[in-house]
Amino acid sequence: MLSKNQVKYIQSLHQKKFRQQHGAFLVEGAKSVQEVLQSDFQTELVIATDEFYKENSRLTDHQRSPVEIASAADLERIGTLGSNNAAIAVVRTKENRPLVINSGEIALILDDIRDPGNLGTILRIADWYGVRSILCSDTTADVYNPKVISASKGSFTRVQWWYGDITQFLHQSTGGAERATPVYGAFLEGADVHTLPFAPSGYLVMGNESNGISPAVERYVTQRVTIPRYGDAESLNVGIATAVLLDNWRRGRGGGPLLT
Amino acid sequence: MLSKNQVKYIQSLHQKKFRQQHGAFLVEGAKSVQEVLQSDFQTELVIATDEFYKENSRLTDHQRSPVEIASAADLERIGTLGSNNAAIAVVRTKENRPLVINSGEIALILDDIRDPGNLGTILRIADWYGVRSILCSDTTADVYNPKVISASKGSFTRVQWWYGDITQFLHQSTGGAERATPVYGAFLEGADVHTLPFAPSGYLVMGNESNGISPAVERYVTQRVTIPRYGDAESLNVGIATAVLLDNWRRGRGGGPLLT
Repeated sequence: MLSKNQVKYIQSLHQKKFRQQHGAFLVEGAKSVQEVLQSDFQTELVIATDEFYKENSRLTDHQRSPVEIASAADLERIGTLGSNNAAIAVVRTKENRPLVINSGEIALILDDIRDPGNLGTILRIADWYGVRSILCSDTTADVYNPKVISASKGSFTRVQWWYGDITQFLHQSTGGAERATPVYGAFLEGADVHTLPFAPSGYLVMGNESNGISPAVERYVTQRVTIPRYGDAESLNVGIATAVLLDNWRRGRGGGPLLT
Repeated sequence: MLSKNQVKYIQSLHQKKFRQQHGAFLVEGAKSVQEVLQSDFQTELVIATDEFYKENSRLTDHQRSPVEIASAADLERIGTLGSNNAAIAVVRTKENRPLVINSGEIALILDDIRDPGNLGTILRIADWYGVRSILCSDTTADVYNPKVISASKGSFTRVQWWYGDITQFLHQSTGGAERATPVYGAFLEGADVHTLPFAPSGYLVMGNESNGISPAVERYVTQRVTIPRYGDAESLNVGIATAVLLDNWRRGRGGGPLLT
């Protein structure tokens, strides 16, 4: 049985301010909770239906998480999902540490992606295309937002992110005379990705939903790229564009898939 | 000033049952209303803020639409968008007529796409990739759902759809000994689209979000296709997959884009 204080605490984590204050966030629904219990995230508490707990006690035992049994109605009342007959996990956020980008890696840079659904979708796409590192501008949606976690379908457990000053990051990692690391930027007018030969590694910058890549970040883009259009839509959603660009990059640099 | 009956009528169109009964649907927000006013759809009524009306009276005059002036708060109360400071159009639905698919055309077949956001995204992607014909199973989300219209970002004015028995359609258009028209189906295991040579035209079947393509439809698939995976995500969202598959088809059949 959940105490009033527990309910209040969990509901407070719907908001970024309290997630930051408490260093915790919510993971909701059967699949996502199973994934987080098997990841290196630390769970504070799992609230589960009796059925979910019985089927997954191996996972909760393994994490040594305290478990509270609740009804589906309770889960829906304290969480953010319209329908949840499985579980909610309260999970510790990770420290915001700079990422170490290996040479040979393809990394994503998100310049002001505001929509949590888009950010969650991008995590899932990155995970599909084997992109492990995502650098987010401070203005990008909070990765611990329940909508991001939910849209990522568990992929938040397999990709790494860092929030910070991406122009400074680009200055430090690509600046200097040689400009060794290619920085691809998605624009409506750029090189056709169906014919462009891609470098084996580098960065792909995706810009804001309405305004695209900001001028400050654009300065570091070494190659503007575009997805050729065959019809009349004015643009593609940023998640869709990320997938198509990574698909072209992966095929374009040769070599088969790592896993199929 | 909107009458009580007008408000009641508009709100009823949030529901499929009443959209079908009245043969009308809602288009909301500046961009979508501008697009529909310039299309071959017939508008019954436009409810607009004073500002939107002043800036777009040429469009409403052209359509000979009655216009009611309302506040943003009114638009939000009678519509489905959380924020709308521009307009809502009440538009006549089109007759559900069988589509004439030209030889040389790439057409989409949607087998039980349930999520309105996914369907709207797919319309936008089809429009980007120059796909004009979309055949939907009767179980696919209603294209006139406000969420579909909104997610399509105006592309609903440029693509055509038909709802019906897609197995019967496939039987009639691809059956027989010769099987002249290729039917590509998206599966998690199929031919790698990075290396598959695509036919110049044919059908692409996309299946249900949870269950994929149904066995009844699968019988008509002549080529199973898959997007190679380089990481660990279990699947891609159906909208994302549609975009990546169409991108591969368009490039794979040679010839440059029609428009860039």
